[in-house]
Amino acid sequence: MLYLIGLGLGDEKSITLKGLEIVKKCDKVFVENYTSILKNLDEMIPMLEKFFERSVEAADRDTVESRAELILDGAKDRDVAVLIVGDPFCATTHTDLFLRARKKGINVSVIHNASIINAIGSTGLEVYRFGHVVSIVFFDEGWKPSSFYKRIKENKSRGLHTLCLLDIKTRERTIEAMMKGLDIFQPPRFMTVDVAASQLLELEETLKEEVCTSDTLAVAACRVGTESQEFFTGTLGEIAKKSMGEPLHSLVIPGELEPLEAEMLSLWASDEEVISRLKALYEK
Amino acid sequence: MLYLIGLGLGDEKSITLKGLEIVKKCDKVFVENYTSILKNLDEMIPMLEKFFERSVEAADRDTVESRAELILDGAKDRDVAVLIVGDPFCATTHTDLFLRARKKGINVSVIHNASIINAIGSTGLEVYRFGHVVSIVFFDEGWKPSSFYKRIKENKSRGLHTLCLLDIKTRERTIEAMMKGLDIFQPPRFMTVDVAASQLLELEETLKEEVCTSDTLAVAACRVGTESQEFFTGTLGEIAKKSMGEPLHSLVIPGELEPLEAEMLSLWASDEEVISRLKALYEK
Repeated sequence: MLYLIGLGLGDEKSITLKGLEIVKKCDKVFVENYTSILKNLDEMIPMLEKFFERSVEAADRDTVESRAELILDGAKDRDVAVLIVGDPFCATTHTDLFLRARKKGINVSVIHNASIINAIGSTGLEVYRFGHVVSIVFFDEGWKPSSFYKRIKENKSRGLHTLCLLDIKTRERTIEAMMKGLDIFQPPRFMTVDVAASQLLELEETLKEEVCTSDTLAVAACRVGTESQEFFTGTLGEIAKKSMGEPLHSLVIPGELEPLEAEMLSLWASDEEVISRLKALYEK
Repeated sequence: MLYLIGLGLGDEKSITLKGLEIVKKCDKVFVENYTSILKNLDEMIPMLEKFFERSVEAADRDTVESRAELILDGAKDRDVAVLIVGDPFCATTHTDLFLRARKKGINVSVIHNASIINAIGSTGLEVYRFGHVVSIVFFDEGWKPSSFYKRIKENKSRGLHTLCLLDIKTRERTIEAMMKGLDIFQPPRFMTVDVAASQLLELEETLKEEVCTSDTLAVAACRVGTESQEFFTGTLGEIAKKSMGEPLHSLVIPGELEPLEAEMLSLWASDEEVISRLKALYEK
């Protein structure tokens, strides 16, 4: 049996009791650490091993995507668990693993947990009123994609909120390593809300469709579901200058706001003008 | 402190370790049972009391919405937990409770868990590619709203999937009770996928916009996240005639399907023509 177990968003205690029981009884336990990142693998594995009182192996991108056989072979006649930050099905890699298992006649059991997709509701924005989720990738000199700008525009035109997931770069080779063909990697890079807001403003300057101006309201949602969770409601202009600390960060561009949503968002605002704009939506 | 604790979708063991620790130390624990339903309250409270080894009180709709004071008064200088099936912020009632607490100067801590919003990903449909979530309500003679039909159409026109949450009727008074002004309620009613599909087909007959025809593909997702979870991919015509057992049921009307999504959906199909339609999308 292959178990795909969600770890949720917080720390090791965010696992469900059901998930914990399975981890304890499995013959082999892998933890994947690249579609989302709680901590560096170097810190995470010892933490989980101590907590679960058993050995845990890393399943990095290579293992899950290309060397899935390693995981699946074990699951044919033994119990193997793959631990996944958030919920197991919030990344296509795990769908792929699920399908491969089924093709080999291996049963798969999924233990769900919270993910940013539902936990973003704690900002006060209704989870039912979101449109297509977008990923904002790091711009570089030659590559500035704008597909997420267009998705935000589409969502907004229907009054829907847009959850923007921010880029995570792991296992990037250094230039020297690339030239020498070595597996030496740069430290992981996580996009923060100020960078995301700046990139959106940069696109606005070129595209000029009034989707992401310096005056557009947005909600910064940082370290959602952890002890140090922090929200901030402000204009994109404000957020582009704001430092919100450690990753992971997400950004929401709200669509039309219901009164209850506006009131909730005002809790995380500090600018007087932003607060007045929100108040106008719920103090009627 | 007020703790809003998600119970997830499965059974009592779907609570997180963090959630469990808080339940054990709180002075008072409520469980709400109306925005979504695991079991009848009559069964659920003894089950939770046994599992948590402590007393648990029901917080029905009246308590949470109108008599929130009862919950909040206790939370001023003691620790009070409200247990919520799924994730705490997937219903506006809890946003309201959160706001009221903040206005009284009570700190609120949220322990997230899985909800249908992310767990629907286990059908194989990508959670990022969903549009506005809709609720399909029970039709009666005089009342047949069609707003959800229009939302499905909008989502489809952008290639997005639609998650349809199905109506739950609890605490409906009998006609006799209404006449006498008594608090006597009918047993709860849960909409099943066959009823939802039939209602969509009924709307199609009137509106004729080719959104929900008997040939439209849909995914029935029943008891998601529980031991008896069951999926079925078929046409709305097929689903309208299909009995999928105990509640809770949800229905998805997919938008455009990516190859991996189509392959996953084919796992839950039985009709040869449906399987061929899906195969055409992933066997290229």
